[in-house]
Amino acid sequence: MKQKLSIIKVGGKIVEENTSLKALLQTFAALPGKKILVHGGGRSATKMASSMGLESKMVNGRRITDEAMLRIVTMVYGGLVNKTIVAGLQALGTNALGLTGADINAIRSVKRPVEEVDYGFVGDVVQVNGTGLRDLLDLDIVPVMAPLTHDAKGTILNTNADTIAGETAKELANYYEVTLVYCFEKNGVLLDENEEDSVIKVLRPDLYAELKEKKVICGGMIPKLDNAFAAVQAGVKEVLITKASNLGSTNGTRITL
Amino acid sequence: MKQKLSIIKVGGKIVEENTSLKALLQTFAALPGKKILVHGGGRSATKMASSMGLESKMVNGRRITDEAMLRIVTMVYGGLVNKTIVAGLQALGTNALGLTGADINAIRSVKRPVEEVDYGFVGDVVQVNGTGLRDLLDLDIVPVMAPLTHDAKGTILNTNADTIAGETAKELANYYEVTLVYCFEKNGVLLDENEEDSVIKVLRPDLYAELKEKKVICGGMIPKLDNAFAAVQAGVKEVLITKASNLGSTNGTRITL
Repeated sequence: MKQKLSIIKVGGKIVEENTSLKALLQTFAALPGKKILVHGGGRSATKMASSMGLESKMVNGRRITDEAMLRIVTMVYGGLVNKTIVAGLQALGTNALGLTGADINAIRSVKRPVEEVDYGFVGDVVQVNGTGLRDLLDLDIVPVMAPLTHDAKGTILNTNADTIAGETAKELANYYEVTLVYCFEKNGVLLDENEEDSVIKVLRPDLYAELKEKKVICGGMIPKLDNAFAAVQAGVKEVLITKASNLGSTNGTRITL
Repeated sequence: MKQKLSIIKVGGKIVEENTSLKALLQTFAALPGKKILVHGGGRSATKMASSMGLESKMVNGRRITDEAMLRIVTMVYGGLVNKTIVAGLQALGTNALGLTGADINAIRSVKRPVEEVDYGFVGDVVQVNGTGLRDLLDLDIVPVMAPLTHDAKGTILNTNADTIAGETAKELANYYEVTLVYCFEKNGVLLDENEEDSVIKVLRPDLYAELKEKKVICGGMIPKLDNAFAAVQAGVKEVLITKASNLGSTNGTRITL
């Protein structure tokens, strides 16, 4: 029987405020068993860019990453946000290790081809180093993954944290019984965005199609849910979308086939 | 018999220019056996701080690290410089992994007590996690260490890269036959700073004391050499001070008792 592994993805908002970060790290540190934390950091990158006089351009919820912006996300995601989390977890006795996709060749990607939009230094995932990550997990190390990958030719690429979490979950499903949790601000996927109680308990492909059609589900939720469905299809045991404070419970939206 | 391990420390200047960085990474990647790279990044931190309107204050060659400066060094050392090196080494087939002292609790430190100078968020090394680093080296991982440590209470601390290299070498001398190499701009410790050919081949404690007395050796060389002597005294097999382009040869100054 496969060992259990939890992969928890948390967005920028949670890890960028001291109070919510502290609560998250305590909940995460208390989760039993093997685990991986994947984090965002977009708001910090935007703030840092702005303090240097650079404007952040977003298209379809994704950041346009020119050379100057690549330096900023490498610093902010790989340095500031990642190391703040790692140091915070170490203080709680969790043996955290920060990783970008370049470290141990964890995630190799290719620069996104220019089609309608030139996203710049943005990477589409090619391969997750499953055995390398397993070696670390075997040492009871807790990987903390920043939303950065590399092209194996020396260039770091900016990659969506939801994608990192999804692709890592899919690859590690070869070795573990994986639960993938996407944490965000709401209790789950809501039928009515103004009603926290309107959580969809179970989301299946047919209902997802219907809710997209009706624009109940839209914007940034779509790539998140596409990743979630792809993960379940690829053998991830369970995908859950929920609030960070629900971590460890079954509250939230369960994505299933 | 102990396995051999090379610990190479390179200063900011080398890793912050594309041409010299590229040459260094090629030389480092070609070194046989187990190895660790320790890097600085002070010039980049100064530049980044300046671009954000912050002035860098140095006392005795050490950076005063207030809260804003701590954020900058965490970003620059742990993010930008470290990940640029890691991605560059991966491109050369070297399985690099970036580490701060917080990652796998690699180096625990205490905030330097305020005496004549308040250095701010600067850490004095308390303990290097030798078994943790050995576990990574056993996986044929090549650690790339940024000049940052942590206090195990959640705070990152700025720590001199020479010290990181020296303390790591001393701890790992328990498990390996360690060669510690400090790379800098000159061919070695020079008798006449204007004569690249005046390299002192072997530096012993008595000659060191004499040259300090005569101010032939001064400034930033003193903490570097103090670390070097402490390392040899603590069981490090060999300490060499040389130019990065001499890596792999025996050119340079050998520190011995």
